[in-house]
Amino acid sequence: MIVTTVIVYVKKENIQDFITATIANHEASIKEPGNLRFDFLQCADDPSRFLLYEAYESEEAAKAHKNTPHYILWKDTVANWMAKPREGIKHNVIRPTERNLW
Amino acid sequence: MIVTTVIVYVKKENIQDFITATIANHEASIKEPGNLRFDFLQCADDPSRFLLYEAYESEEAAKAHKNTPHYILWKDTVANWMAKPREGIKHNVIRPTERNLW
Repeated sequence: MIVTTVIVYVKKENIQDFITATIANHEASIKEPGNLRFDFLQCADDPSRFLLYEAYESEEAAKAHKNTPHYILWKDTVANWMAKPREGIKHNVIRPTERNLW
Repeated sequence: MIVTTVIVYVKKENIQDFITATIANHEASIKEPGNLRFDFLQCADDPSRFLLYEAYESEEAAKAHKNTPHYILWKDTVANWMAKPREGIKHNVIRPTERNLW
């Protein structure tokens, strides 16, 4: 299992558009066969800062996400709405280890 | 629902101790009544960087965690193992909205 966290800083005027586009990406991503979670969060102290928490059952499944039509559409749609480049960090899972807890 | 992400940078010589102490904290935290998730992850590119992904059903439940014996023990145990202060960020949940998906 692998979890990528992505922090996105969005221009104030595009926050609502970004939320709409990312909800669509969330809804499609959780239907991918190797997806375990795709949580979409907003920083409580800074509404222009968002977090995607993308859990996949394997490196291959995480890579396959990057080739899906919904990811490519999202990436292109939100590109100009970002206040600065997004920060993606890949993690290995220590706990929980059971797949059904993901 | 509320999610706190905590990034912890651990001194190289304390990585194994930190993993052991944090697994114990994870096991106890997931049994708290208001806890939804308490994922423990290690950065793939930097084994000294860890992420806690702490989801609670309410602000009150998240606060109650700070008063549990296992949290206090963890905090005191790992304090000297940190290479720098840990970074906690509080988030509101946009998706998924259904409680049973947490």
